Amino acid sequence: MSTGNWQRWGLEDQRGAANLLTPEVVLSAVGSIRAGKVLSLAMPIRGATSNGGARRVPHLPGRPLPQHFMAVDGGDYATGARKVKDVMAIADDALVLSPHGTTTHIDALAHVWRDDRLYNDHPAERVRSYGATRCGIDKLGAIVTRGLFLDVAGYLGADYVDPATAIDERVLQGCAAAAGVEPRPGDVVLVRTGWPKVFADSPARYQGAQPGIDYSAGRWLVDHDVVAIGCDNAAVGAIGSDGGFAGPVEEDIHLLTLWERGVHLIEMLWLEELAAAAQPEFLFVAAPLPIEGGTASPLNPLAVL
Amino acid sequence: MSTGNWQRWGLEDQRGAANLLTPEVVLSAVGSIRAGKVLSLAMPIRGATSNGGARRVPHLPGRPLPQHFMAVDGGDYATGARKVKDVMAIADDALVLSPHGTTTHIDALAHVWRDDRLYNDHPAERVRSYGATRCGIDKLGAIVTRGLFLDVAGYLGADYVDPATAIDERVLQGCAAAAGVEPRPGDVVLVRTGWPKVFADSPARYQGAQPGIDYSAGRWLVDHDVVAIGCDNAAVGAIGSDGGFAGPVEEDIHLLTLWERGVHLIEMLWLEELAAAAQPEFLFVAAPLPIEGGTASPLNPLAVL
Amino acid sequence: MSTGNWQRWGLEDQRGAANLLTPEVVLSAVGSIRAGKVLSLAMPIRGATSNGGARRVPHLPGRPLPQHFMAVDGGDYATGARKVKDVMAIADDALVLSPHGTTTHIDALAHVWRDDRLYNDHPAERVRSYGATRCGIDKLGAIVTRGLFLDVAGYLGADYVDPATAIDERVLQGCAAAAGVEPRPGDVVLVRTGWPKVFADSPARYQGAQPGIDYSAGRWLVDHDVVAIGCDNAAVGAIGSDGGFAGPVEEDIHLLTLWERGVHLIEMLWLEELAAAAQPEFLFVAAPLPIEGGTASPLNPLAVL
Amino acid sequence: MSTGNWQRWGLEDQRGAANLLTPEVVLSAVGSIRAGKVLSLAMPIRGATSNGGARRVPHLPGRPLPQHFMAVDGGDYATGARKVKDVMAIADDALVLSPHGTTTHIDALAHVWRDDRLYNDHPAERVRSYGATRCGIDKLGAIVTRGLFLDVAGYLGADYVDPATAIDERVLQGCAAAAGVEPRPGDVVLVRTGWPKVFADSPARYQGAQPGIDYSAGRWLVDHDVVAIGCDNAAVGAIGSDGGFAGPVEEDIHLLTLWERGVHLIEMLWLEELAAAAQPEFLFVAAPLPIEGGTASPLNPLAVL
Repeated sequence: MSTGNWQRWGLEDQRGAANLLTPEVVLSAVGSIRAGKVLSLAMPIRGATSNGGARRVPHLPGRPLPQHFMAVDGGDYATGARKVKDVMAIADDALVLSPHGTTTHIDALAHVWRDDRLYNDHPAERVRSYGATRCGIDKLGAIVTRGLFLDVAGYLGADYVDPATAIDERVLQGCAAAAGVEPRPGDVVLVRTGWPKVFADSPARYQGAQPGIDYSAGRWLVDHDVVAIGCDNAAVGAIGSDGGFAGPVEEDIHLLTLWERGVHLIEMLWLEELAAAAQPEFLFVAAPLPIEGGTASPLNPLAVL
Repeated sequence: MSTGNWQRWGLEDQRGAANLLTPEVVLSAVGSIRAGKVLSLAMPIRGATSNGGARRVPHLPGRPLPQHFMAVDGGDYATGARKVKDVMAIADDALVLSPHGTTTHIDALAHVWRDDRLYNDHPAERVRSYGATRCGIDKLGAIVTRGLFLDVAGYLGADYVDPATAIDERVLQGCAAAAGVEPRPGDVVLVRTGWPKVFADSPARYQGAQPGIDYSAGRWLVDHDVVAIGCDNAAVGAIGSDGGFAGPVEEDIHLLTLWERGVHLIEMLWLEELAAAAQPEFLFVAAPLPIEGGTASPLNPLAVL
Repeated sequence: MSTGNWQRWGLEDQRGAANLLTPEVVLSAVGSIRAGKVLSLAMPIRGATSNGGARRVPHLPGRPLPQHFMAVDGGDYATGARKVKDVMAIADDALVLSPHGTTTHIDALAHVWRDDRLYNDHPAERVRSYGATRCGIDKLGAIVTRGLFLDVAGYLGADYVDPATAIDERVLQGCAAAAGVEPRPGDVVLVRTGWPKVFADSPARYQGAQPGIDYSAGRWLVDHDVVAIGCDNAAVGAIGSDGGFAGPVEEDIHLLTLWERGVHLIEMLWLEELAAAAQPEFLFVAAPLPIEGGTASPLNPLAVL
Repeated sequence: MSTGNWQRWGLEDQRGAANLLTPEVVLSAVGSIRAGKVLSLAMPIRGATSNGGARRVPHLPGRPLPQHFMAVDGGDYATGARKVKDVMAIADDALVLSPHGTTTHIDALAHVWRDDRLYNDHPAERVRSYGATRCGIDKLGAIVTRGLFLDVAGYLGADYVDPATAIDERVLQGCAAAAGVEPRPGDVVLVRTGWPKVFADSPARYQGAQPGIDYSAGRWLVDHDVVAIGCDNAAVGAIGSDGGFAGPVEEDIHLLTLWERGVHLIEMLWLEELAAAAQPEFLFVAAPLPIEGGTASPLNPLAVL
């Protein structure tokens, strides 16, 4: 077992590589802003339970899909519900959400671990029914840094990357070179496979094998001290046809990033508008909900171009 | 009834004042960044159901509090759950959330309306059990703009503003003048009352009357074409001892902002660190979850100082 | 449109045919008890969200499956959670459930209606976000009466009834005659198709067309003044290959029973042990949860043989 | 520590005293039926989230209250939702429920344990995030047996029993003698304190100390081999002013019944109509939902008089 770089960012730490986000990094990243245009990189959270709408947004099979309920709505007022002072209507709602595999989200460092130790040697026993009291998503705060866009599908001249195509170090390097960028410490790197577009034609195909980065690509990124890796597939790493992580556990992207290096993963991104924008550097903002002990947070990541 | 400025931003529009967020506004706001420091303005989402933890975070009475459940956790692995390839553990969780009154959130324009028309004359009948197909929080996208901080409690030399003290136009003006700032089109203005600090001592007092801006203050802000108003109380406007909005419906802050002007409200902010930072201008970022038809989104608002 | 027997049981009534359950009917039904053996006719509610267990219980496609969460469990105590007085452990849990199409349940009269009137001419506008204030499942109370078992699959000598086979009046009559029973006012009649057994082999086939009673069979039953009809398929009536109710709306079993006659439907029963018991008459007990305004209740129906 | 009667009903067993429910017991219990009248002993499950209705039903403080959502309702159809074949409307809903302390329910044997062993020496480690794979409520099946009603409040001539009054063996014996009944193996005994009536006047008082049976009363009942004890308070045993179980852990009613003896507890009953009926013997029916691994089930218990 590799003990990796567990203690690289300090023994007490639960933020991992996000500690690299010094004011200098933030200020430098702000310098990447060109056009003043803001793009959301999230897929919609569609939660209607009775009309099947939730099933028409990309998701992994077998996951509980978002449920969105109105506690009071316009139909109630139209059929006689009393308004405040007879004129003012208020609508209220509720959301039931299991982020992994169902919508755009960021993984907490407590999402995966090896044996019985979390990232930075925190005991896994602290991840209990009350939530993770170590390395939960509430420990992250936020990510404001330079975003680097590696449009692998575009680089390969494909609508989407075939799951049989390895997105390895060489591909990422080539893609970065073509874009004229190079990862530097504190960056968030977003990798586009184009895979979400498959869903509209065939949910079943989307839910099978998915393209994603391999171990060499993951190492290349973490060795550049990125703070997070985002991808428009469902696991950043490639997914095999059995739905599991492809490859041996020593090359698992989740373990390499979240557990060994404290590097966050942002999954199920929507990168089509970003691809159209053709600006490989920008200010990237991720503001996860501070869910105490959460293994993830749903996320609306932003690119400020 | 005032038909207000319904159509000010265009008949088709469901984004309201957020349309003011042109690239120029964004670029100008970026110029407010000084120190490169990022502050989260959110309260934690504490969802433990069995230990009462959720009740120890500020919230309005009678609301369903957040529930956070672990679908699989470290306790499971410690007691025999099978790991992936015998070594890799995965934790998974779920969240049940009704944002209004329970945590830091941003209101959608569809949250309130008058009679049977939403903001911009959209029919209220479009707000149904499936969610608001008009003016839902998914229509907002994101807010990246200049944030102005009006620390009313600090300006008044109080730990927190007394609910009997009106936060009116004059107070806001004085507070802004003391800080050397003035709202301009596209700004988000954050008003600090200090009220969340009351909760630790007395949840019951917190849940009674709350200080907040009055109608004159609201008008002053919307007349400066701000895109959103945030506050650390639970309703931006003041709350009476009966838990309702204080004052006549014609002076209701929710109607004035969300419904008449398309100005978003951000409620239950945590502004104590921002108060300590003493920087009245900054880049403000709100990235609401794109919940289709949502009346609000939980939010982790950021101030980039 | 048939206005049917709307007012048959009295204009004020929201219990429908359940009003037939007089003490005499109950006492007579008690006389059906022979062996003193109690059978549960429910399928399990399996709610694990992370292991896909919920998907391995018969259910209709596209429905939100049960979710069952432990708020505190044995894994927590094994990993250090404090016990009461250091010795006593307490486990706690939560359930998220949408009964229709996901588990054994009984439909409220408010589950379906025609045009804008509920059963017994109650206004459909009373079915709102707060629940159905007319004809909700809370109005039923309970059903304790004679149960009649019509094992159609057994009668036809099949493991399960083919969806192409109409279960019509003639089949039910033949099945009843073979069993030596005849429906009488106040009975609950349970119809076995055997269809749940299909699920283990092929969820997709289970979720396609399903065998069920046709309109003539439904009329035969309601004309015998039964108070409820139960079936082991998902809709009592047959389901077409498109997932909808088969046939014209005038022959819809839901409308005929719930709406016209106030006859409850019990769906997704598990009738295999009852089939093995070979006792066509018994005491039947349904004790729905008094969910105020509920369109259904999950149910553990009992046969006391 | 008392190892009690753990193995009394057999080492493999997870049903506890419910094994006493032989056909003879059932048939004998059926003989208790007199009038053919059916009473529900449940409180309503009121789940409206926006109007505070849920708070107006008796419940313990700090518990997540029931939430009931309509996925589609009459308001939707009144405002334009498309009906099936233009005429048929369908309403659908969802329930979020944590049974303990919020509504009438029956505890599973897996709800409490001592040290690290469940009832009947099953390992507590089998109670995990997926639910209790030992002694969950799904193992019970159902309870059909003789019910004995001990109206302690009536016996003491009080509207409700004062929390300072011990309901001990002597009181139960006196109450039973006055009613002319005596517990026998297989019975369910229902104890009325009248405490739910306090809620309407003062939720806070209801949520403080509650009357309930003491250890001597509990022993008297389990020594008569009852299969379950029901009460209209929230814990069967008395509750102290701090909300905890009163008395030393060795005298804890939950441990004595669920853990030592495999005797189920039914809590938060509504016994007012039963008190008015003045029939101390009847057929009692509990049909818990077969929630796999559940620590409890919401319940609509029935008394067939």
